Amino acid sequence: MSNKLARILITSGPTRQYLDPVRYITNASSGRMGAALAAAVLKLGHEVVIVSGPVAVEYPGAATVIPVLTTDEMLLAATETFKTCDGAIGAAAPCDYMPREIQTQKISKTGKPLTIELVETADVVATLGQSKRDGQWVVGFALETEDRHFRAIVKLERKHCDLMVSNGPAAIDAETNEVELLDSNGIVIEAIHGTKEHVADRLLAQIDDRLIHQSSKPKT
Amino acid sequence: MSNKLARILITSGPTRQYLDPVRYITNASSGRMGAALAAAVLKLGHEVVIVSGPVAVEYPGAATVIPVLTTDEMLLAATETFKTCDGAIGAAAPCDYMPREIQTQKISKTGKPLTIELVETADVVATLGQSKRDGQWVVGFALETEDRHFRAIVKLERKHCDLMVSNGPAAIDAETNEVELLDSNGIVIEAIHGTKEHVADRLLAQIDDRLIHQSSKPKT
Repeated sequence: MSNKLARILITSGPTRQYLDPVRYITNASSGRMGAALAAAVLKLGHEVVIVSGPVAVEYPGAATVIPVLTTDEMLLAATETFKTCDGAIGAAAPCDYMPREIQTQKISKTGKPLTIELVETADVVATLGQSKRDGQWVVGFALETEDRHFRAIVKLERKHCDLMVSNGPAAIDAETNEVELLDSNGIVIEAIHGTKEHVADRLLAQIDDRLIHQSSKPKT
Repeated sequence: MSNKLARILITSGPTRQYLDPVRYITNASSGRMGAALAAAVLKLGHEVVIVSGPVAVEYPGAATVIPVLTTDEMLLAATETFKTCDGAIGAAAPCDYMPREIQTQKISKTGKPLTIELVETADVVATLGQSKRDGQWVVGFALETEDRHFRAIVKLERKHCDLMVSNGPAAIDAETNEVELLDSNGIVIEAIHGTKEHVADRLLAQIDDRLIHQSSKPKT
């Protein structure tokens, strides 16, 4: 258990990128991993702020929740909140492509194919990673369908994360998860399998030990 | 009140069209209008089968619910179910565009724009409308952001509907709705505004009077 109390930002859930007033691109992220992480943070006595896309899940009552819709909104709320936090856990699945143009009226069917150009949205976790001050830490999630381990290491480095949680698409909208936790050198320090609550408890134990305690120690 | 009991199909909720194993196109349809319509159907003593996309809403316990994910799955379940029904109410918001190609692995970000070609999905209500046998009826919903009345009439005709409910984007994921009900000649027979439960009760009263009773009368 930590003696030092921390204020932790969790991003959670999906975001939406609208094509027109009705249709949007998203993913099935349920916010369950974020909710489980928030509960685990609170159990250790820390404070938690959740920046969440639209979800049906209920977050712990003791958590501060900032609702957002798009990736840009998540980025704005997360970077602003991070300034007052000791660390951040990026459990959200922000939509990482958005239409270059948003139609202001509902696109009518014409019988013909429709070509849309998508551009990348800003990377929320990478932006937090780049903006870290001394002692601040960032834990990322990498969801990949192939080359999971390799791609998690690439993301760890590119996003300046202190720990990276690698998981697969089976995690989405599921009750359970199966993850590998990588340290900042890309070494797997724990493999965790079970309910999202169990995974969250184990992740928080590692974060508490390696990041929250660590950042309060004098630099050597 | 009807003396003749009917078996009614309701399509409800959104559908999803996947770009890859994680990302998909959808809309914010909550299934609340479908749930309210099902409750109104049951109140009149009729039987109801709901073909529903992924929603968080709870349908009445007495309703048979067939869950689907994509528009093609909704089409298949609805056309099969419609064979044993007296009528259908198309309250779903099926995703009407799908990527021409679905990537089997998660698309990796490259920093470059991504062009995707979308093609139209099958039209569930139009397919039901075309397959009507003697005495069967179909009620459609038209959601438009502009030229609402005109476009509802076009859809009424093209989809071979007996009644058309015209509403706007404010209906999506809302507790209330504001609709116009058009008869098969495109005449507005009732404007309804209120909770989705109230709108559903009024729509069912009209359907009961104009379609369920009517279809049991000998043809003149």
